[in-house]
Formats: sequence, structure tokens, C-alpha cells
Amino acid sequence: MATQRKKTAKKNETAERMAARQRDISVSEFFLKNRHLLGFDSPRKALVTAVKEAVDNSLDACEEGGILPEISVELLQTEDNRFKVNITDNGPGIVKAQIPKIFGKLLYGSKFHRLKMSRGQQGIGISAAGMYGQLTTGAATEIFSKIKNKKLAQTMKVLMDTSTNKPTTLKAKEVEWQPVFYPYKEDGKAGKMVKASHGTCVSIEMEATYIRGKLSVDEFVKQCAIVNPHLQIYYRVLMLKDVDEEGNPKDVPWITFFRGSKKLPPEAGEIKPHPHGVELGVLMQMLKDSTARSVKGALQQDFSRVSPKAAKEICEAAGVDPKAKPGKIAQQESEALYKAIEKTKLMRPPMDCLAPIGEDDLITGLKKEIKADFYTSITRNPTVYRGNPFQVEVGIAYARPGENDDLAGDDPVRVMRFANRVPLLYMGGACAMTKSVSAVNWKSYGMSQPKGAVPIGPMVIMMHIASVWVPFTSESKEAIAHYNEIIKELSFALQECGRRLSIFLKKRKRAMESERKKDYIEMYIPHMAKGIAEILDMPEKKEEKIVKDLKNMLERTHLDV
Amino acid sequence: MATQRKKTAKKNETAERMAARQRDISVSEFFLKNRHLLGFDSPRKALVTAVKEAVDNSLDACEEGGILPEISVELLQTEDNRFKVNITDNGPGIVKAQIPKIFGKLLYGSKFHRLKMSRGQQGIGISAAGMYGQLTTGAATEIFSKIKNKKLAQTMKVLMDTSTNKPTTLKAKEVEWQPVFYPYKEDGKAGKMVKASHGTCVSIEMEATYIRGKLSVDEFVKQCAIVNPHLQIYYRVLMLKDVDEEGNPKDVPWITFFRGSKKLPPEAGEIKPHPHGVELGVLMQMLKDSTARSVKGALQQDFSRVSPKAAKEICEAAGVDPKAKPGKIAQQESEALYKAIEKTKLMRPPMDCLAPIGEDDLITGLKKEIKADFYTSITRNPTVYRGNPFQVEVGIAYARPGENDDLAGDDPVRVMRFANRVPLLYMGGACAMTKSVSAVNWKSYGMSQPKGAVPIGPMVIMMHIASVWVPFTSESKEAIAHYNEIIKELSFALQECGRRLSIFLKKRKRAMESERKKDYIEMYIPHMAKGIAEILDMPEKKEEKIVKDLKNMLERTHLDV
Repeated sequence: MATQRKKTAKKNETAERMAARQRDISVSEFFLKNRHLLGFDSPRKALVTAVKEAVDNSLDACEEGGILPEISVELLQTEDNRFKVNITDNGPGIVKAQIPKIFGKLLYGSKFHRLKMSRGQQGIGISAAGMYGQLTTGAATEIFSKIKNKKLAQTMKVLMDTSTNKPTTLKAKEVEWQPVFYPYKEDGKAGKMVKASHGTCVSIEMEATYIRGKLSVDEFVKQCAIVNPHLQIYYRVLMLKDVDEEGNPKDVPWITFFRGSKKLPPEAGEIKPHPHGVELGVLMQMLKDSTARSVKGALQQDFSRVSPKAAKEICEAAGVDPKAKPGKIAQQESEALYKAIEKTKLMRPPMDCLAPIGEDDLITGLKKEIKADFYTSITRNPTVYRGNPFQVEVGIAYARPGENDDLAGDDPVRVMRFANRVPLLYMGGACAMTKSVSAVNWKSYGMSQPKGAVPIGPMVIMMHIASVWVPFTSESKEAIAHYNEIIKELSFALQECGRRLSIFLKKRKRAMESERKKDYIEMYIPHMAKGIAEILDMPEKKEEKIVKDLKNMLERTHLDV
Repeated sequence: MATQRKKTAKKNETAERMAARQRDISVSEFFLKNRHLLGFDSPRKALVTAVKEAVDNSLDACEEGGILPEISVELLQTEDNRFKVNITDNGPGIVKAQIPKIFGKLLYGSKFHRLKMSRGQQGIGISAAGMYGQLTTGAATEIFSKIKNKKLAQTMKVLMDTSTNKPTTLKAKEVEWQPVFYPYKEDGKAGKMVKASHGTCVSIEMEATYIRGKLSVDEFVKQCAIVNPHLQIYYRVLMLKDVDEEGNPKDVPWITFFRGSKKLPPEAGEIKPHPHGVELGVLMQMLKDSTARSVKGALQQDFSRVSPKAAKEICEAAGVDPKAKPGKIAQQESEALYKAIEKTKLMRPPMDCLAPIGEDDLITGLKKEIKADFYTSITRNPTVYRGNPFQVEVGIAYARPGENDDLAGDDPVRVMRFANRVPLLYMGGACAMTKSVSAVNWKSYGMSQPKGAVPIGPMVIMMHIASVWVPFTSESKEAIAHYNEIIKELSFALQECGRRLSIFLKKRKRAMESERKKDYIEMYIPHMAKGIAEILDMPEKKEEKIVKDLKNMLERTHLDV
């Protein structure tokens, strides 16, 4: 069979022969081969990633539409290692013309070219899930969507041509709006989805494995409910065994995570790039693309925090005519402008573009999930990395050893990570959040900690970053990149939590030792009473009184250790 | 200044308004914003990444051309936080028409659409380095290349239009071939680059910081020389202080890493995809694109290890006509073929497509770099993940505590990672190699190890994976993705090394204790001799003889502990 092997790499390959083999690589070919970059490395993780991408999109759409989100997540096993992932939301729906591109084309969307806090940001996620489904089962993504002003819903199937990254549409038609995967039940037993007049259902069949545990869809859905108290989410898993002999699924009930609040998170606004976070190349491109008539106008109009005065200052410092056409600026002038901007004092970017979870909700979330003895949380003030505003939050829950079976005292603490309210389950080792936890000296707060590792103890650390642009270490958005500014903020928050924990632990230790001393003294009280009674030759009744008095005294005394 | 903030996210955003904002994202815009995915997160790392991408390309080109590689790497500081990265090789050169695309377009190249072991594989690296340079300094990438059959060399500058991912060419002209950054010196003091009649120089100016240490260009170049014994590499760093008052760089000498071998690594052949690693979606696409006239022909021709007999078997098991046109196969038939392939026994993919470093060279490499007491290495047999042949190798060096200042006995062991002979410096925490080291139980081999972490001790672990397609966790190719098959192979190799280490450590411990016992007994020999002499009433001379005899006896005796 050796003849089958094609040896193209002959010795003395020439530049010409190499040239003949060089060609374009489409972005979908690239990600198909590198599907682990998108979070589809294993059938188990693929299931989590697909659910995550769909739920992220649903939540974003609902919040932008000002709608209190209700989402149903259904995993329907179709073969031993195949599932249909069915997600339904009550969002504003998607117009017909956009459906194929959103679900059948990588790098397409509304969130990339803006600076606004949202879950999705790349225009890759949901179409990647569809591509993975198509790759592993050959099946198209099925979409069903109803928008407010239309009478009927639109349904179609979408395939991706991976060699060109273009969508193909199959079986598009208009139908009655009747959400397909829908926990609505007249008896309302398992929660009741509101019959919205709009929404989107998406169904992707894919190779997948369903396993419970810390890295499962169960966990994702649970954590999602924790950080999105305004979300009502319905969830069920239908395994092959849940299908009767005639092929009909049995009536497996939906698990409902009820919303804890009817208030949408505060509206996060969109901002323009801040001049101090813009690189020379981007500045050049922005000037070239500007619709402003003058350089000064472009600086004021296309960036945040550039007042007319600041714009004039920048132009003067750079020796550039403020009235020059921005499209005609030469490279050297751009560089002069860039350096002038760096030296000009400007207000920090507006920070009301961030909607953190908040210290109270952090603790509420932790209490919902983690049985513990001590809770605390910090929401840091917003700050800036590469011109992008961001804000970090940390909450901790510390259990009494042996109190919580999930938190063994001799295991590393559990780190729960979130970015723009999305739970991050995988790739903890690569994450700036985990790194920050390891870098803090927990020994000084009374915990044990192996060198360079996360501390040991019955504790959960919940961490959240909110930003108009969260820097992830990969397209699958599972870990935060190691930007110094971010690590610094996380460390400050962790240290403050650590200090509070340390005070609590010391107090508890003192209380416990005091308790121990009391017990010890209490043991001797009868003997002491007996001695006193003997010395003073008192009757037995008095002896009993002495015991009582001494015990009372002990109760009142604060024994310092 | 609040007026500058644009709130586009009004409550009750509708599907129509959302649609108006949805649009294409170019792959270069995407990576420009996410440049940390490509390894350009910090000025320090950017410098390492740029050098790595250029050297990888040079090495691949030389080896494909059957040329013993000579490469010069020059870092030339131009401003406080700016460097020119200058790389010259003696490779086959690049034909004029390909230069702009290779250096000014992401996702372009010859290595993506094939299965062959090489350093580059994505068609992103060097153009990303150029894009980063352009982003941070506005400067174009400068190329200078001479191919064998041309009299003159081609030179040009290339810029990338990031909104379309297309190259623009500036100042293209033909010139005399005189490599620009070139350690050639008549006196040959610092090594002497061969005056090749072909080669490529590339020069990229970028924002960068040069810092020595474990994550530096110095370290990359050194490790590169270790795993590529056939490579001769010249290296120098010219800082601002190395420029005299008239602006001319002083004559900073080149550091030469001389080659240890004049033999190129064995030629690694190209293979076709193995049917067992091909997913349904890919199979469908391959059948559609096949040039074969029948399904049977396509199976034999487009895949490795499918004999005419096996092809017939597959078609029969799938119930597909072997003579059917491959382009006209329906989805259900493809699925039947896919399932039939899964069930058909086929030979494993050919393994001569892999060129491992080898157990001897691993130890040679370690000895060159690490002063230690004990060395061992394992090259595992090749095996397969997702149809891709791969092979892992592990070498360890264990120093006597206190013997090697770089290896403190109470620090975590140092893990050196390589993929297809490329050193991986960053993102160790996310790498399957580090994970494998942590997962092995080193305590059973006599080392201490915190729970779930790498062991503690004066040891270096060198790990290498060779594959036709190395799965990295990100485009920057710094860490291996967590494929079970890979982790399993790495674990086996680590465990075997661990067992050998354990035998060595036990032996050494025994030897040391035996030594201690001997010393102890030796102390008493004179006293014993005196006693014997007194009891037997012997002269002093005899006493001396007894001491000598007892010492000899002790030397000959093996004292077990």
C-alpha cells in the first residue's frame, strides 16, 4: 500500500514548485480543521459550547429588545453519540434575510464593530455550532423565528459551504408561530413559558456526549441562572431510554430555574474608542475612513472624550493643520498625531457602559448555590485596559470544614469564572482569573497554599469581569487573556476579600479556642465548688449555688486567647 | 462630554433595527482586535512571536529545499519601545508573485491543505507579525528574496489592508543579491554564513520590548538550536546604546550557535487523510470534490490505506453502488458510507511521515543545556488521533540537589515543550504537556508533588510532539490542545521515564546510605583493632595490619540497607 503515499516533499524543492502549492485558506476551512479553537474538541464539550453560544445570543437579543428573557434548553438524544440541541427564546426574532448569514457564515454579526458590553462579540459562536453539527452529522441547522410585526413565523434550514464560508438555504417557508421546543403546559407544573408573540428557536443535531458534573450543560445552565437573576430558564434532557417503543419521547418534565428578579440589568451603552487605547495603525485607518471634514472634527466625532479644546491641542502639538482632510493625512503626520494624543491629558472613557452584577447580587448568587459560613464580595471601580473600560468583581464563600460535602477542606478551592455574565467552565488553567488567585498570598489570610497554586480549603471564589471587549485566550471564549491591568484589578479584589476572610477566620478561631477553654474550666467548676465549700464548711445547698454562680461568671466572661 | 456617548441600545430594539447593524467581519479585522490570539498580547511576547514565525518559515523552506539551514536573527532597537526584527535565511527564496500574499494576507499558504509534518501549518504566522508591525508603527514589512534561477533578487515592501485582508505592494524592484542582515565576516570570528545563491530576508518594525529570561528571544533561539542540531543560527541584539553618536550601529558581534550535525532530519512525507479520522461532513465534501469517476475510485485515490478490496467492502456494507459518481452521492448514502468505513478494518496510517528527534538526540540536547546527574529519554511508537499520525518523546535530566544553580530542589520542575521541533515558551498552563506532567503520580517515583501540580525537584522534563497536524489551543501555537490520545501517550512516556528515575534515585539513596554506614564502621576500626590486639596480646605492627585488613574487608563488602 506504500504506493498510495504521495511524497511531494522531494529534496531540492524549488521556489517555483513551492509557489504552485500556495493558496487561500477560507476562514471556515481553517476553523473546521481547528474546531477545538471554537470549543468543539470533544463530544462532551461540544454540547456545552453549542448550548452556551445559543443561550448567549438569546440573552443578548432579549436584553437589547428590552424583553425579560425566557429560554428553554432541550437536549434530545437521537443516537448513541448524537444529540439535537434545541434552544427557544422569547426574543425579538430575526428578519428573514439575516437568518442564513447569522447561522451559516463565520465572522458575521452586529457585535464586532461596536464597543458595548454583551455576551457575544465575535460573530462566530452560533454559526460554528451549526458548522460542527454539519461536520459530524451532515445535518443542517434548523431555525424558526417570528418577529413582532409579521403575522407568520419564518422557518428554514441552513448549511454552510465551508470552502467559501457562505450559507445555503433549504426549505424556507412561512408557518404559524408555535415555538417548537417549548415547555408550555396548561397545568403549569414545570413552570410556564410566556406565550410571546415573537422569538427564535434553533435546532442543531451534532455528535455529542451528555455527562453530568462540573463541566456539563447542567452546570452551565445552573451558573447561568445564578448570574442572570432576571432570566427564567427551562431545561430538560431526553435520553434514548426516554423514548417509548413507538418512538415518541416520554413526558420528561422540564426543570425550571425561576427568575429571582423582574428587573433587567441596567442598560449598558455603546461607546466610541478612547484615543489612549487606539494603536497607530488603527488611528491611521480611522482617519482614512472618517466622515468628518477635518482632522479636528474626526478626533472629536470618532473618539470618546475628545473635546474641541483637546482636539485643537492635539493638532497643535503634532504640527498638523486642524482643518486638513483626515483621509489625506500622511504616515508621518499620523505618527505625530499618535504621539500627541499619548501626551494629551484626556478624561477616562465613560464608565456607564458597564453593568456589573453588584456586591449584593454576587452574595445572593453564592448563597443560592453554596452552603457556607462566611460570604463577602467586592465590586471594584471600573478602569481601563487598551482603552477599553472594564470592571471586575469577586465574591467568596467559606464553609466550616466538614459542613459542605462539595467543599472538602483538603482540596484546592473552587473557582467559578464569569465574563459579561457568561459562565466559563473550561480552560481554567489558562485563565487570568485562575492566575490571579494563584498569585495572591493566601497564607497571609490564614489559608494553606502550595507554591504558585490556588489555595487549599473549603472555599468557593466567584469572579466576574464586565467589559465592552473581553479579551479571551481563544475563540471559544473560555479563559481571559493575561492583561496586566486585568490581573491587577482581580488581585486587588481578591486581596480585599482575603483580608475580610482573615478577620473572620481569626475571630472564629478565637471563638473556638475560647469555647474550648470554657469547656475546660467548666469541667473543674464542681471540684472548685467542692473545695470552697469544704474550706468554708458550707452546706451542700450552698455548694450547688457556688457551681451555678461560677458557671454564670464564666458565661459572662470573654476569654481572650 | 456626555453628548459624545452614542446610546444605540435603546429599549425595545426590534429585529429590523438589529438587522441593519449586522455585517461581515474580515478575518484580519478579527485578528487585529484579537491580536493576543496570535501571540501579540504584550510588546515582550510580540518580539518572541515575530522571531518564531520567521524562523519557523525559514527552517521549513530550507528543509523542503533540501538545504542545510543557516539563519541570522537580528533585533535592532529603533526607539525606546520599538525594534526592527531582521531574519535572513539561505532557503530557496520566494517567487515575486507570492511575496505580497505570503507577507500581507492572513490565511494564505501551502501548508494548510496537506498532511505533512512541518513547523508552519496555518498560513497566518508571518503575515500576522507584519500586521502587528503595521498596527503599532505604521511601517510596511520589507522583503528581499533571491531564487536560484534568477540573476537578481526581488525586493519590496508589503502592507495589509485589514478591512479586506488584501496586500498592497510598495517599491518593488530588482536588485543585486546581497543579504541585508548578514553575519558574514571575512575574519570569520563569529561564525560565517555561507554565501548562498538564494535566500530570503524579512524585516518588520514593531512595538516591542527586549527582556532576557525564560520567555525571551534568547531562550527561543537557544532552544531552537537544541532541537535542530542541523541548524546554524546567528544572533545579535543591537540596543539604542549600541549606536554611536553619528547614528551608526557599533560592531556588536554575532553569537553563533554552531550546528552539531550536517545531516538534515529524515524527510517527512506527505500523506492523505486516513478514513478513520475523517468526519461525515468532510467525507461528504471530499466525495463532492473528488476527481475520481466512481465512489470506489474516490475511496482508493483520496484516502490513505484503502485498498481496492477495502473500497469494495465499504461500498457493499453501505449498500452504495461502487460505480456511482462520487459527486452525486446523497446525504443518506454518505452517512451509510461513513458508518461502513467506521466498521471496516483498515491499516493504520503510514507512520514514516513523522521525523521524531530520537532518544539519543534528546539526551544530547539535554546534556548540552542542563548539567545533571541522571538523563533518560523515550521516543514512543507513532500512533493516531483523529486520523492524524503523531508521536511523542520525553527526556528528563535530574540534578543532584545543589549541583545546578538553575534547578533549585524546592521549585517545581522545569518543563521544556516542543512541537514539530519548535520551542513553545508561553501558555504552559494551558498545554496538554504540562497537564500530563501534573497528572502523573511522581510520588511513586520518589519525588514530592503538590496535589494536581507538577512535581517539585531539581529536574528538567523535555517533551516533543511530532505530527502532520499539531492541534494547538490557539493560533499563536503555544500550547497543545487536550486530546485524550495525546495525553495518554505523553503519560506513558513520562511514567517510563519516572520508573527509570525511581530506580536511579533508589540506587543513589542506597549508595549514599551504604557510604554513610561504611564511614561509621570505619570510625570504629582502629578501636576494634586495638581491642583485638589487646585481647590477643599482639605487637603494634600487627594492630596496624588488622586495621588494614578490616578496611579492605569493608571495601569489599556490599552493605545493604
